[in-house]
Amino acid sequence: MRNRQMVIAKIPRGALQVSDFEMRDTEIPEPGAGQLLVRTLRLSMDPATRARISDAGYPGMLGVGDVMAGSALGEVVTAHAEGFGPGDIVECHTGWQDYSLQEPDAVATFDRLGTLEEHLSLYGVSGLTGYFGMREVGEPAAGKTVVVSAAGGAVGHIAGQVAKQLGAHVVGIVGSDEKARWLTETLGLDAAINRRGEPLSAQLKAACPDGIDIYFDNVGGEILEAVLPRMNEHGRVVCCGYASQYDVAAPVTETKGVPALLVRKRLRMEGFVVMDYYDKKQAARETLAQWLGAGRIKLSVDMLEGLERAPEAFVGLFGGDNRGKRLVRVADPSANAG
Amino acid sequence: MRNRQMVIAKIPRGALQVSDFEMRDTEIPEPGAGQLLVRTLRLSMDPATRARISDAGYPGMLGVGDVMAGSALGEVVTAHAEGFGPGDIVECHTGWQDYSLQEPDAVATFDRLGTLEEHLSLYGVSGLTGYFGMREVGEPAAGKTVVVSAAGGAVGHIAGQVAKQLGAHVVGIVGSDEKARWLTETLGLDAAINRRGEPLSAQLKAACPDGIDIYFDNVGGEILEAVLPRMNEHGRVVCCGYASQYDVAAPVTETKGVPALLVRKRLRMEGFVVMDYYDKKQAARETLAQWLGAGRIKLSVDMLEGLERAPEAFVGLFGGDNRGKRLVRVADPSANAG
Repeated sequence: MRNRQMVIAKIPRGALQVSDFEMRDTEIPEPGAGQLLVRTLRLSMDPATRARISDAGYPGMLGVGDVMAGSALGEVVTAHAEGFGPGDIVECHTGWQDYSLQEPDAVATFDRLGTLEEHLSLYGVSGLTGYFGMREVGEPAAGKTVVVSAAGGAVGHIAGQVAKQLGAHVVGIVGSDEKARWLTETLGLDAAINRRGEPLSAQLKAACPDGIDIYFDNVGGEILEAVLPRMNEHGRVVCCGYASQYDVAAPVTETKGVPALLVRKRLRMEGFVVMDYYDKKQAARETLAQWLGAGRIKLSVDMLEGLERAPEAFVGLFGGDNRGKRLVRVADPSANAG
Repeated sequence: MRNRQMVIAKIPRGALQVSDFEMRDTEIPEPGAGQLLVRTLRLSMDPATRARISDAGYPGMLGVGDVMAGSALGEVVTAHAEGFGPGDIVECHTGWQDYSLQEPDAVATFDRLGTLEEHLSLYGVSGLTGYFGMREVGEPAAGKTVVVSAAGGAVGHIAGQVAKQLGAHVVGIVGSDEKARWLTETLGLDAAINRRGEPLSAQLKAACPDGIDIYFDNVGGEILEAVLPRMNEHGRVVCCGYASQYDVAAPVTETKGVPALLVRKRLRMEGFVVMDYYDKKQAARETLAQWLGAGRIKLSVDMLEGLERAPEAFVGLFGGDNRGKRLVRVADPSANAG
């Protein structure tokens, strides 16, 4: 048995490529006293990790030869730490490799609310981000028009459905006609816009005849610029992410045009991160579980098979290839997992 | 007796010039039935009026030959309307001229809280904008660091002092060393920065060693770009104005860089207009009157003498010439005003 590691082969100068990664074959590491050896089962693909690939040399940055970072659900193989035993399923930062050493205080126990995939999507960071961002920051209600960008993504497809559950009129922005149909036909959104189709501004006008009250922004950039002028007075922009800037050589920093729009329409733009709402995490997960169980929301998990496909899975996120939460299946739980 | 009118002589292609205006000599108009003839006493200089000078031809825009718009306190000379009599002091949109005709429902009676000058500054739109914007949107408190841009202006010099009254550590940004001294020595702010001095970012770092919790933004543009990266987590940006863009040929519209900053630091940027808080107007004016009477805040009114100086007074606003609220004295109340 060996440990396969997907490492960074070169630092991209612009958009990330599959060829920026390469597989390395190494020994399985030996856990020391107090450590766990964990086998990776399901790797979570998270676009924000892109920002760590850099030759800037800051602490926490990933350079050439480093194992690509990523969190995952894994199975404890060897436990030299109290409270853990072989077969335990844990969530931790494994990186893109078959085996990793973990310190007990850096792993969380899998609480078995749902499947492995549900844990890493609906009940994990991306699902809760969609839920809290929409509910707590956006505050949708009946009679409000909500627009969600990257509405077919891990966060967006939950955010849009949460707004529907709370009674709003919901319009999603996606990158293909096929995904647009999925939003309305399967997820039950009221309308969907293909940003690669007609000019966005005209499509927004048609889909939101009463203007936009809440914009859940996963992307920033040109989509934000098209949405802002169509916001209603006292509208709210939930700043969740800025995916348009994750995978470019020089992220834009212009902010000069924002205040005029905010003042004229008394808008609020608010950034948030999901951890700020973790005091309400259990209640949120119960609500989501209830909605899922009753068929009121649909969860989409987009899983690719095999560690060797992690680069393809990750790079595709920036082109919007994924439908819902993207995972990579590295291994399945062993017979004695439980 | 004649009516002098300051009219628009040409539409500026960039920064407004004194030579874009010219004086015209006309007849004093005759009030019809139901109208008032009002003599202008004190003209209020408001930078946002700049946006109405345009050859775009939209309704409400001011083209060549039009009397420049402006609100004022005036005295009723002839009243052909019930409830008004000669000598009444009223607030209305007179424009830049000696005499104007007014409809009774477009004038407000002067309520005599303070002097004419105090009415047009502290108790008027600019004072209340500083008060409500800081208190209701910014919510300063002891232990918080507040930064105010255009801190020597009509709104800013009130906003900064309101934050001081509410216990915050307050830093003002102005355009000269002399004004910076005035902010700390006379208005009692904790520190002041001359934006034309050392690089703003270094000055902000020195003046706000614990970061910035609340930014009261009157200007947008490059100052906003320098402040945002120094904001603390969960900070608030009160979007009050964007003076950097009022007097340029092509206002910038870039917004792409904002979300990254808002998300990373969970910032909130919120636009407001003072009218949204007018249900609390009387209480606000009483508080301000109390603070002024007790010497806890200082009011600065910057009054130029004579209608012929209105262009100079107005153009100077965009260079930051004014200290506090800028007015033009066109005439004094007559002996029978009261």
